[in-house]
Amino acid sequence: MNLAVIFGGASYEHEISIVSAISLKKILPALEHFIFVDGNRDFYWIPASEMRSKHFADGIYKKNPKLFLRPGGFYAKGLWGEKRVPFDTALNLIHGGDGEDGKLASLLEFFRIPFIGPRIEASVMSFNKHLTKLYAKERGVKTLPYLLARKNEKREFGNEFPLIVKPLRLGSSIGVSIAKNRQELDYALDVAFEFDEAALLEPFMQGIKEYNLAGCKINGEYHFSIIEEPQKKEFLDFDKKYLDFSRTQKLLKADLSEASERLLKEAFIKLYDDSFEGSLIRCDFFVQNQEVFLNEINPIPGSLANYLFEDFPKILQSLAHNLPKERGIKIDYRYIHQIQKAKGK
Amino acid sequence: MNLAVIFGGASYEHEISIVSAISLKKILPALEHFIFVDGNRDFYWIPASEMRSKHFADGIYKKNPKLFLRPGGFYAKGLWGEKRVPFDTALNLIHGGDGEDGKLASLLEFFRIPFIGPRIEASVMSFNKHLTKLYAKERGVKTLPYLLARKNEKREFGNEFPLIVKPLRLGSSIGVSIAKNRQELDYALDVAFEFDEAALLEPFMQGIKEYNLAGCKINGEYHFSIIEEPQKKEFLDFDKKYLDFSRTQKLLKADLSEASERLLKEAFIKLYDDSFEGSLIRCDFFVQNQEVFLNEINPIPGSLANYLFEDFPKILQSLAHNLPKERGIKIDYRYIHQIQKAKGK
Repeated sequence: MNLAVIFGGASYEHEISIVSAISLKKILPALEHFIFVDGNRDFYWIPASEMRSKHFADGIYKKNPKLFLRPGGFYAKGLWGEKRVPFDTALNLIHGGDGEDGKLASLLEFFRIPFIGPRIEASVMSFNKHLTKLYAKERGVKTLPYLLARKNEKREFGNEFPLIVKPLRLGSSIGVSIAKNRQELDYALDVAFEFDEAALLEPFMQGIKEYNLAGCKINGEYHFSIIEEPQKKEFLDFDKKYLDFSRTQKLLKADLSEASERLLKEAFIKLYDDSFEGSLIRCDFFVQNQEVFLNEINPIPGSLANYLFEDFPKILQSLAHNLPKERGIKIDYRYIHQIQKAKGK
Repeated sequence: MNLAVIFGGASYEHEISIVSAISLKKILPALEHFIFVDGNRDFYWIPASEMRSKHFADGIYKKNPKLFLRPGGFYAKGLWGEKRVPFDTALNLIHGGDGEDGKLASLLEFFRIPFIGPRIEASVMSFNKHLTKLYAKERGVKTLPYLLARKNEKREFGNEFPLIVKPLRLGSSIGVSIAKNRQELDYALDVAFEFDEAALLEPFMQGIKEYNLAGCKINGEYHFSIIEEPQKKEFLDFDKKYLDFSRTQKLLKADLSEASERLLKEAFIKLYDDSFEGSLIRCDFFVQNQEVFLNEINPIPGSLANYLFEDFPKILQSLAHNLPKERGIKIDYRYIHQIQKAKGK
């Protein structure tokens, strides 16, 4: 498996992505190629031996070769011409902005570089929490009720608490708070608006059961992870999730009835099918009274949720060999030739 | 106004984009910079004097300087180093794939190049006709009823005809047909599936009134075009639309009551607001019994619908000076430093 991991990005989750890439390297020691996107959006070719967080935090990466993106791959300038980074498939491991918002998918599709990760549409639908609601509804998967709040609008959201307040377009619990009253809501909105122009408000369901299920479709067949019941206090805050992105230890399966497990897998398939091909995603669900609600779709889970899979390297390898293909478009200038002929030119 | 027009693209609408760019040059003789994307997705710097369709159809463009996309702009290699194409704002004029599907928006956002055109989310929501339906509904704008057809599914769509069949993700009427019976429907689906894995079926409303309205928001204020009632036979097929993309002649305003005009503008604002900032779009509506239905959102209309505006150059200039800004993200490695400190490293 000749993968290049792309990580970093000009994103609030930049550091998380570094941690995630370092963890993935631990799980897959054969990984050779690491492409770092710094805050300026320059690409760097990082030697596997330098994959330590300090290398980035201290700016040492700037001594590594800069890379340039062009049709077919990433290139480094050398003394005697250019060298292509010799990988077959890229792995999008940029969490949050740049990676999950469709930008990296676009770059890789545009320059025809095969990659593991969500495609443009799937990225947009899972990155924006409001669009995720519309998408899930269309696919027949329930979500919690919600309200949208915009930065410049009057704040009138009734009197029902507690609420959970999330910036519209972030992952990793950044900027997420629980508000137990009007004053806390005001503060929670201020926090969320630091990260986005809009926020999503949902009822906070104390004690609701939460289950995470990861998986992907390969050659028309679904491969699921074990189902995890995430540990939580009130909810996973950023510090907690940060550590979460570096997880490599295998987990115990959640204690769940067969019927509930089937419901979760059915919901996963409804969400994944015909949209998330080429990516390994994690869906986070709530379950209450035998009903399944989608909380969020994580199209690039931290270190790809490796700890949830029994044979993670094998899944990744099969996925790399079964990526969606771009539709070939033949440009033959038929219309222009036709018009020029008509004009006698 | 120092614009660079980006056109071409690996798209079924490649030729349309060339025609559109040539027309725009006629309307805006001051345009200096033209960046062509060929079928291979290489960028070329086309001198204004070479903006003729033959230049592209005959492959002569390959003699023009190749360009490379990097943070901050497009660069040409010269004998003594690199030269940046000296423009302030790019104008996305790639119709269909690559331009309207979010790819070019992603490239330009990623490399921090200011541009006129739909952003990623807006691109995705208007490019996929099914997502446009969901989006319009959420915004409180009606659309016609529809069915989705997928290439590999059984074809069971009831017995009501005529239907209009559209590939899910194309513009410019490519692959669109009207089916008056079951046999025609089968053929229409075959045609549509040449272009996409899925197709949208809608009732074909013979004689329904159609109106096009273009516009944009600049500094919080809407600037609308005149409303056009497009000429049509059964519907605009590709050949007709192709010519349509080269229109530069001013039009007569549609004969429409003030009330209907207000309804159309209200619907336009609902669709544009908070999503299409930075772009000049054209919304195509149906009107029946005083009710407005969205037909489609055209986020990059042919030659930007210049013929619908009274002072098109001024609108474009103001828009170029009022583009959405990217949120600045400071990457300070706070978490990594904190963890390293805790580890005593």
